[in-house]
Amino acid sequence: MGQTLTEKILDDHLVEGELEPGEEIGIEIDQVLTQDTTGTLVWLQFEALGLDEVQTELAAQYCDHQTYQFDFKNTDDHRFLRSAAGTFGAYFSRPGNGICHNVHRENFAAPGKTLLGSDSHTPTPGGLGQLAIGSGGLDVAVAMGGGAYYVEMPEVVNVRLEGELPDWATAKDVILEMLRRLSVKGGVGKIFEYTGPGVESLTAPERMTITNMGTELGATSSIFPSDEQTEDYLERVGREDAYEPLQPDDDAEYADEITIDLSDLEPLIAQPSMPDKVVPVREAAGEDVEQVMIGSCTNGGYEDILPAAKMLEDQTIDLSTEMIVAPGSKKASEMLAREGWTAELMAAGVNFSEATCGACIGIGHVPGSDSVSLRTFNRNFEGRSGIEDDNVYLCSPEVAAAAALEGEIVDPRDLDDDIEAPGLELPDTYAGAEEDIIEPDEAVDDELIKGPNIGDVPLKDPLDSHLEGEALLKMEDNITTDHIIPATQDILMYRSNIPKLSEFTLSRVDDTFAQRSLDSDGGFLVAGENYGQGSSREHAALCPMYLGIEGVLAQSFARIHRANLFNFGLLPLEIDEDTYEQIDQGDDIEIVDDVEEAVRSGQEEFTIRVNDDWEATGILDASAREREILADGGKLTHVKQQYEEEGGAPADD
Amino acid sequence: MGQTLTEKILDDHLVEGELEPGEEIGIEIDQVLTQDTTGTLVWLQFEALGLDEVQTELAAQYCDHQTYQFDFKNTDDHRFLRSAAGTFGAYFSRPGNGICHNVHRENFAAPGKTLLGSDSHTPTPGGLGQLAIGSGGLDVAVAMGGGAYYVEMPEVVNVRLEGELPDWATAKDVILEMLRRLSVKGGVGKIFEYTGPGVESLTAPERMTITNMGTELGATSSIFPSDEQTEDYLERVGREDAYEPLQPDDDAEYADEITIDLSDLEPLIAQPSMPDKVVPVREAAGEDVEQVMIGSCTNGGYEDILPAAKMLEDQTIDLSTEMIVAPGSKKASEMLAREGWTAELMAAGVNFSEATCGACIGIGHVPGSDSVSLRTFNRNFEGRSGIEDDNVYLCSPEVAAAAALEGEIVDPRDLDDDIEAPGLELPDTYAGAEEDIIEPDEAVDDELIKGPNIGDVPLKDPLDSHLEGEALLKMEDNITTDHIIPATQDILMYRSNIPKLSEFTLSRVDDTFAQRSLDSDGGFLVAGENYGQGSSREHAALCPMYLGIEGVLAQSFARIHRANLFNFGLLPLEIDEDTYEQIDQGDDIEIVDDVEEAVRSGQEEFTIRVNDDWEATGILDASAREREILADGGKLTHVKQQYEEEGGAPADD
Repeated sequence: MGQTLTEKILDDHLVEGELEPGEEIGIEIDQVLTQDTTGTLVWLQFEALGLDEVQTELAAQYCDHQTYQFDFKNTDDHRFLRSAAGTFGAYFSRPGNGICHNVHRENFAAPGKTLLGSDSHTPTPGGLGQLAIGSGGLDVAVAMGGGAYYVEMPEVVNVRLEGELPDWATAKDVILEMLRRLSVKGGVGKIFEYTGPGVESLTAPERMTITNMGTELGATSSIFPSDEQTEDYLERVGREDAYEPLQPDDDAEYADEITIDLSDLEPLIAQPSMPDKVVPVREAAGEDVEQVMIGSCTNGGYEDILPAAKMLEDQTIDLSTEMIVAPGSKKASEMLAREGWTAELMAAGVNFSEATCGACIGIGHVPGSDSVSLRTFNRNFEGRSGIEDDNVYLCSPEVAAAAALEGEIVDPRDLDDDIEAPGLELPDTYAGAEEDIIEPDEAVDDELIKGPNIGDVPLKDPLDSHLEGEALLKMEDNITTDHIIPATQDILMYRSNIPKLSEFTLSRVDDTFAQRSLDSDGGFLVAGENYGQGSSREHAALCPMYLGIEGVLAQSFARIHRANLFNFGLLPLEIDEDTYEQIDQGDDIEIVDDVEEAVRSGQEEFTIRVNDDWEATGILDASAREREILADGGKLTHVKQQYEEEGGAPADD
Repeated sequence: MGQTLTEKILDDHLVEGELEPGEEIGIEIDQVLTQDTTGTLVWLQFEALGLDEVQTELAAQYCDHQTYQFDFKNTDDHRFLRSAAGTFGAYFSRPGNGICHNVHRENFAAPGKTLLGSDSHTPTPGGLGQLAIGSGGLDVAVAMGGGAYYVEMPEVVNVRLEGELPDWATAKDVILEMLRRLSVKGGVGKIFEYTGPGVESLTAPERMTITNMGTELGATSSIFPSDEQTEDYLERVGREDAYEPLQPDDDAEYADEITIDLSDLEPLIAQPSMPDKVVPVREAAGEDVEQVMIGSCTNGGYEDILPAAKMLEDQTIDLSTEMIVAPGSKKASEMLAREGWTAELMAAGVNFSEATCGACIGIGHVPGSDSVSLRTFNRNFEGRSGIEDDNVYLCSPEVAAAAALEGEIVDPRDLDDDIEAPGLELPDTYAGAEEDIIEPDEAVDDELIKGPNIGDVPLKDPLDSHLEGEALLKMEDNITTDHIIPATQDILMYRSNIPKLSEFTLSRVDDTFAQRSLDSDGGFLVAGENYGQGSSREHAALCPMYLGIEGVLAQSFARIHRANLFNFGLLPLEIDEDTYEQIDQGDDIEIVDDVEEAVRSGQEEFTIRVNDDWEATGILDASAREREILADGGKLTHVKQQYEEEGGAPADD
């Protein structure tokens, strides 16, 4: 039986398990990337593991989320990251050099390689035939230390593209069409593999717009074959050596197949406030637009901004609309400036931002109240722009530029005839910002520089045989990781400072919780259904662990948060509704079993004694690997212990 | 007797008083400018006055401080300002179009005109022979309504320039030399008038670097003659019609004279943390520099950035140093981009920011902890950069670029021989960003758009005959306006929302104060010496007024805050030390006199009865005009009443 492209790459990197959907597999990681809001913890964990040198072929540290540096803690984080990259042997992309995904694809992405990144849009270079997966920071730290990455083998779905895009339809419309059809949950547990004759007509940057935003489908990753378009792009970025042709076998079998005829597509738009609320632009036309933003890792490339620049040449934007261009990389900024497009866009009324994630995560250019913002970004979740009740639409740069011209949403096909479809044009060479990546061998630091906000990562002791403590907080259903650790800017800047960050743990539920936990000698959380849904941030497990929480009793757990609880050594027990109802906050909880022994031995049912009065059952659903991690006190302690058993961390070899 | 240039312009605009130093004079205002952190209150006051059209020749509203728009309140403020400019007939400079002083000098500044602005660096176009003064927002609102501006006639000091600047010395070094000699208090109550043969060698932009930073001397204003250099600049900005030659009379008499031989100057630098801590750069050489910033209203012009760009062409900045260029205006940004300099600077490792005040006021690019930042800005007050215990140096763009190249402070004369002194070069024409000023006749709004954070301005009733209330807060000496209304970002964004902002009143002294005041029916503040020192922000009087405070008993008042207390109708009484010592917080305070009558009649001594038990004397030191304003309930009520007596606001004519 033939293999899909995904299977081929996984096969090449497999160190444990079998390529059966749903099975846990361990794969070798060739490249890792981290950014500034997740990277500090990655390096602190790397340090805590006792590692002293990056073991992957390549590790790259980017500074992209907090590049406006509006608190010294951001600037200190950047300096720490530079020092960590220098000390441990990673590439360091300086603040202002652009978004990790854009800079990575320009400088390092390569077909056939595996990439693990502590950012959810890590799958971007799937457009170059790279198998790229987003994960929590601890997984990245372990991978950088030479450890395998474990993931459930996803289903591989064939997305067959036919035809060619007509004028005004773009790669953005391909992924918006996918979202329209499949919804934001349509990709969970899947990898989308793009095939078919339509693939050949799409350049690599267009493919990467699609793979980038595959994340919004919930997909584990998305991937295109590596072909002449891939080679062409790699030549233009000056890295033709990285090219390797890669295709699925002709007789590869897929779990499912979707067909999109590119020639049927028209300009689409995602309405507020979910990326899958997609309609043709013409159906949303006429809505006043106060802000237009072009940029982000989805559509922030030189070739994304160029069409908008051509549309705006010798034109002026509507006086009631603000338009901001935030290039995805400084290379794009420099090229646009060198060729005169920056000046042309400014003349049209456009404001240029630094190359940053910025506005996409609500940092800068927050829309006004009760206003519409049209953005070429990948997410329009309610409130993500920095204001509650926002009205953010997602679209292509062409649709964005059209709205800026008219001051309202307009199908670009309805623009005056003198504005022609700009089409897509790649530059002969992507050249610029060559000084903004510090290579490992030119590092300026050989030791870590920690500002006063940068602490150490706490390590947990192995699981006790006897667990007992107070039910410190009883919560409802659907508690999100945003409830556990809010991501607002005033709290976000403490991501490198676990003791300080922990003060905010569950403060949105009960602002006395953190202090009560510290004052207690251990304790438990109690929750209803779907505990820990939402973002994958590992701080939502790490901070409760720091506060001394030993376990969580919940009716059910969200998938990623459940994994994070194992990773940080917190016992996650499922309880039934009756038990949930009967436990009150303040009750004394005791796990009657020899917990460590029971966890390691594969025991599934645990006896929970409440107030030394009555008993209930808690279920531990875990793989053998997860049980070892949990019993060892979390992944950090577990991996560190492995290194010690093996006679030292790999970097000591 | 001949006249100074200052006297000539004042004479042309005098509506009240005589040009005797120390005498209060009223002058007509030709132009006003406001920016985004002070402008919202200006327009709310304009609205509260019942005015409906700008009466000055020109009013210009800029958006420059909060252009990163970190909060929707910033964006809402910008939209409100656009709507106010449109509704009332002002020019509106869109967010991102640059710093008020830079954009004003490019587009509107004119020799011989008076300019009043709600920003302390308003004197910038003194370099074009304009008499420009910074003031509180209420004064700007009244001037926009056609009212005179009242100020104590300053002393006019002759700064005689001789010789010409040698290589590597710049206009920045002229004003740094002034600061070195005179200190930050050396200009209080003075206008510096630059004369002598050295003046001719300085271009208008160089002159404006000097007049801009005259503010750091504490001067009321600074001014240069209008001559061929002025004409030359106005031609280059396409406004030759605005030119008018202006010189002081040959026999003008000055209060004092200072002589600077330009040919004696060398590169200077202001050390942390005061603009007058000036030494030659060579004396500070060798200090490691982590951040270099070129920009601000002092050195953010095209012609300021160009020399740095020439120095960095084909060079690269030090890998351990971050360098950010934030042009003062989008016109400068566009010109630099059009000519390729933006791309050259980026290639050297420089990061470009939007055109904004930004970092100069601690918004964005906050230095890292325990690090040195070299900036071409005008202020390095401790903490202003956004981090306490900062180390900010002030210098010319040439010195800044040299430090970026070397990673440490270096006298540019000690650079490699292949880096030549770039000299100063003006462009043939300053062209760009033509679409970023919305003229009154193309306004897009004809009514005010107030987001949820934008409230009305409270109006105070006329002074009561009987004042009695609790001593709600007793404070020490030297309470600053930063104590009264903090200027940190989390509070700054409420500048348009007096009820909300008032919640923070004196919170740094006692965070129960605001609520206690609201709960009381009137009340008093009690303070020691020098109450209200520091920034001129009028919110420090407006917010206590909103909370119901009726008077302040202090041993002495800072000058500007004392004026603000009159402007917002709070009775400022001076008490002696014994009285201060005897009054306790919580005491009942009664002013025994018929207060309104006594204030209007010129009575100086007021009887304060404490706890219906003992009496003391409070002194009211005020001009007749100030007494009328106070008795009427503050300037806003006072002026509004005048309009009504005159049969309507001027705009109704």
